[in-house]
Amino acid sequence: MSTLDGAIQFVRDNKDRFLQEYKELLAIPSISTLSEHNGDVQRTAQWLADELTRHNIENVEIIPTPGHPVVYGESLHVPDKPTVLVYGHYDVQPVDPLDEWDSDPFGGEVRGDYIYARGASDMKGQLFTHLKALEALARQGTLPVNLKYMLEGEEEIGSPNLAAFVEENKERLACDVVLNCDAGIHAPDTPAITYSLRGLAYFELKIQCAKKDLHSGLFGGSVLNPIHVLSEIIAGLHDENGQVTLPGFYDKVRPLDDEQRELMKAVPHSDDEWMEMAGTKALHGEAGYSTPERVGARPALDINGIWGGFTGEGAKTVLPARAYAKLSARLVADQDPAAIKDQLSTYLQAHIPKGVDWELHQHSSGPGSTMDHKSSYMQSAIAAHETVFNKTPIFKREGGSVPVVGLLQQALGVDSIMLGFALPDDGIHGPNERQYLPNIYRGMEVYIHFLLGL
Amino acid sequence: MSTLDGAIQFVRDNKDRFLQEYKELLAIPSISTLSEHNGDVQRTAQWLADELTRHNIENVEIIPTPGHPVVYGESLHVPDKPTVLVYGHYDVQPVDPLDEWDSDPFGGEVRGDYIYARGASDMKGQLFTHLKALEALARQGTLPVNLKYMLEGEEEIGSPNLAAFVEENKERLACDVVLNCDAGIHAPDTPAITYSLRGLAYFELKIQCAKKDLHSGLFGGSVLNPIHVLSEIIAGLHDENGQVTLPGFYDKVRPLDDEQRELMKAVPHSDDEWMEMAGTKALHGEAGYSTPERVGARPALDINGIWGGFTGEGAKTVLPARAYAKLSARLVADQDPAAIKDQLSTYLQAHIPKGVDWELHQHSSGPGSTMDHKSSYMQSAIAAHETVFNKTPIFKREGGSVPVVGLLQQALGVDSIMLGFALPDDGIHGPNERQYLPNIYRGMEVYIHFLLGL
Repeated sequence: MSTLDGAIQFVRDNKDRFLQEYKELLAIPSISTLSEHNGDVQRTAQWLADELTRHNIENVEIIPTPGHPVVYGESLHVPDKPTVLVYGHYDVQPVDPLDEWDSDPFGGEVRGDYIYARGASDMKGQLFTHLKALEALARQGTLPVNLKYMLEGEEEIGSPNLAAFVEENKERLACDVVLNCDAGIHAPDTPAITYSLRGLAYFELKIQCAKKDLHSGLFGGSVLNPIHVLSEIIAGLHDENGQVTLPGFYDKVRPLDDEQRELMKAVPHSDDEWMEMAGTKALHGEAGYSTPERVGARPALDINGIWGGFTGEGAKTVLPARAYAKLSARLVADQDPAAIKDQLSTYLQAHIPKGVDWELHQHSSGPGSTMDHKSSYMQSAIAAHETVFNKTPIFKREGGSVPVVGLLQQALGVDSIMLGFALPDDGIHGPNERQYLPNIYRGMEVYIHFLLGL
Repeated sequence: MSTLDGAIQFVRDNKDRFLQEYKELLAIPSISTLSEHNGDVQRTAQWLADELTRHNIENVEIIPTPGHPVVYGESLHVPDKPTVLVYGHYDVQPVDPLDEWDSDPFGGEVRGDYIYARGASDMKGQLFTHLKALEALARQGTLPVNLKYMLEGEEEIGSPNLAAFVEENKERLACDVVLNCDAGIHAPDTPAITYSLRGLAYFELKIQCAKKDLHSGLFGGSVLNPIHVLSEIIAGLHDENGQVTLPGFYDKVRPLDDEQRELMKAVPHSDDEWMEMAGTKALHGEAGYSTPERVGARPALDINGIWGGFTGEGAKTVLPARAYAKLSARLVADQDPAAIKDQLSTYLQAHIPKGVDWELHQHSSGPGSTMDHKSSYMQSAIAAHETVFNKTPIFKREGGSVPVVGLLQQALGVDSIMLGFALPDDGIHGPNERQYLPNIYRGMEVYIHFLLGL
C-alpha cells in the first residue's frame, strides 16, 4: 500500500478513537483571558507536546513566554522537500453567557452531525484534525515533508507575546511556507480557501466624570453622566451612511475595483441566509457595499462590550462615576493598526467634554493581509480539496482576523496557506459553539493529500 | 423635672448605649433589591417591632405584603392632641462597588465625627434618631401626642406594595399629619426643612439585534450592534441645551417665576462646593437654570446603568446580541409619571431601527410634591430646629424623591413634615455612605421638641 493509501486507510479505521481523543482535548477549559484558567492552558500545551512526540516530531518543547507558552517541535529528514511551519492555537474564548449554552461548554456533546463545545471549531477542532493527519502519516514511516510546529496559547487575547517569540526564534522557525490551520470552508460540502483576512485593533475606553457614584436624585440634572458621555462618543463613531467617522480611517483602504468585485461575487452568498446565520431580522452596514464586501473588503468598528452604573436586579437610583467600553476596529490590508489608536485618541480629545477624565488602553492589534493565490503551495491545497470534496474550492475574503499571518509574512517573509474546516455558522466565540463532525474526518484526508502533494 | 427636661437629659445620658444600638441596626444588611437578603430585611423589621414595643407603642405588628413587610404600631392616649403618622423605611441600597468602600459597609466604623455604613444616613440613622427620641419621651410617662408608625422595607426599590397597603389600611393610618424622617438638613450647623421633592419614573430598556452573540470579525460591518443602537438612543435623549428631548416631557412643568427664584436664592449655595461634594471637575445641565434650580425645580433624565457584550478582563471579539440600560426621570410637581412611560415608548418607537427588538419595563414611579410651609406643624418643626441649632432653618427644594409624600397626600389628605438629619455629602447610595454623628444626638432633641410642641 502506498503512503497515501495507508494514511487514508488509517484515518478511516480510527474514527471512534479519534472522537474520544477530540473530546479529551475539548474538555480542558484553556481560556487564555481568565487567569484562573492558567493551569488549564498549561495542561493543554502538555497534551499537545505529548501528541507531537508520539507522532515522530522531535525536539518537542513547551517554551515559556511572559504569558502562556508556545509548543514547538520539528521533523527535518527530507532535504529535497519544502519545510512547512504548522501554526495553530490551543487557547479558547470565555464561555459567558453560560446560561445560553444547551450543554456543558467543555462536555463535547454530540447532537446529530455536530459536536458542541467551546473550541470545537475555533480551533481545537482544526488543530486536532491536523494532528490526526500527522499521526496517520507518521504511522507510514518517514514524514513526507519537513515540519515545524508553533502552537500558541494566546491567540484569543491577541497574541501579545507572539511577535517577540517569532523575533527571538527566527532561525528556528525558518520555513518555506506556513500551514495555518485556523481556517474554515464555506459550507459543509463547499470547500473554500481564504486568501484575505481582516486585521484587528482592540481598545478599552474608560470615561470618568466624578470621583464616586452619586445619588441620581440629589445630583441628577447638575453634573455630567459618564454613560451619557460614552453614548455620545459611540453614537458619533458612525455617520448616517454607516461609515466610521474617525478622521483618516479610510485613507489607506484600497478602493474595490470591478475585477475584485467580480471575484467576490463568485462566492455563493444570500442576504437571507446571512440573516438566518446571524439570527437577525435586518442587515446594516456601509452604504454602497454588498454584505460580502462589507465583511471581506471593508473595515468596520464595533463596540464589543459596555458597562457602567448599576447592572443588578431591580432599581438603584445611582448616577455613576464611571462608564467603560471595549471597542475594536476590523482592518483591511494596508490599514495601519497603530494609526487607528491615534485617530481614536484625536476623536476622543475633540469630543469628550472638559472636566471629564478618560483613558484609552490598547489590548491588541494586527494588520490585515492578502495572499498570493497562485503559488505552488496554494495549488497543492486546491488539489487536496478537489480530491476529497470532489469540488474546486472557492476563494474567500474573510472578515475575521488571523494576525499571525501578517506577523509571519513580515518576520519570516513567507505566505500562509489557510487550511481548516470550520463553518461560518459554527457560532465561534458565542454560546453553543459547534463543529460539523464529518468534515473533521474529511479534513484529515485533505491535510494528508496537501502534505504529500508538496 | 418637666417632661421636656427629663427627655433631653435622658438622651444626653445614654449616648454611648445609643451608639452601640445604632451599630447593631446598621449591621443587618437589609438590601431590599437583592432577594438573597430577604431574611435580613425580615430581621430588621423584627428589630424595629421589638424597639417600638419597648417604648410603649401598642398593637405592634409586622404586616406582610407581597414583598417586604410593613412594621405598624400605635399609641393613642391623648384625645386633645393631634395624631402623627411616623413614616420611615428600614431597607437599604446595595453596596457595590464593594472595593470602593474603605471599611465594611455593615461594620459601622466610626472615623472622626462620622460613622460609615450602608444606611447610616439613608435612613436607618434618621429612623434610629427618632426611635431614641421616642424612648426618651416614653420614659417620662404618657407619650405627649398620638402616634402611629408605618415603617416600610421597600423604599429603595420604589415601594411597589406601599400604595396598596395604604389603600387597604386607610382607617388604621388616619392622622392629622405625617412625620417623615427620611430627610436631611443643609450643613452640619445649618438646619433646613425640605418643602419640595422630585418624583421618579424608573425604567429598564432591552435592545436585541440578534438571537445570540456573534463573532465581530465574521459579522462586523454587516449587522446592527445593539450597543450602537442603545448609544444612539441615549445620545438622542438630550439636546445641545441639556434639555430632555422626549415629546411632551416639559408640558406640565411649572415655569419658575421671579418670586420662586428669589426663595431658592436664599439657600446658601456655591457651585465650587457643589463640585467638591460631587467629586467632579465640571457642572452640566439645562441651559438657563442655576444648579439649585436644575436639581430642585427642574426635571432630569439619567442613565443609571448600562451593560452588554463582553465586560470581563481582557479582550473578547464579540458582537453582542443584546444591550441593556436602566434609566430614570426625576420629576417635579405636576408631571405625571405615567405619561413619561408613554413619551419614552413613543420616542423609542420612532428611533429604534426596523428589525431590532426592544422591551421597556417600568420598575417604579412616584409623583413630585410641594408642601404648605406655613402650617402649625411646620411651625413646630421650625421652633424645634431653632431651639436645638440656635438658628432658623432654611426652606429647601430637594432633588431626590420621597414618593410616599405624594402617596400619603393623595390617600390620606395630609401633608408631611420632612424632619431628618442627613447631610448632602453623606454619599448615600454610593460607597462610604456616612452620617455626621453629633447630629444624631441633636436630632433626638429636635424630635423631642417637635412632638412636645404640637
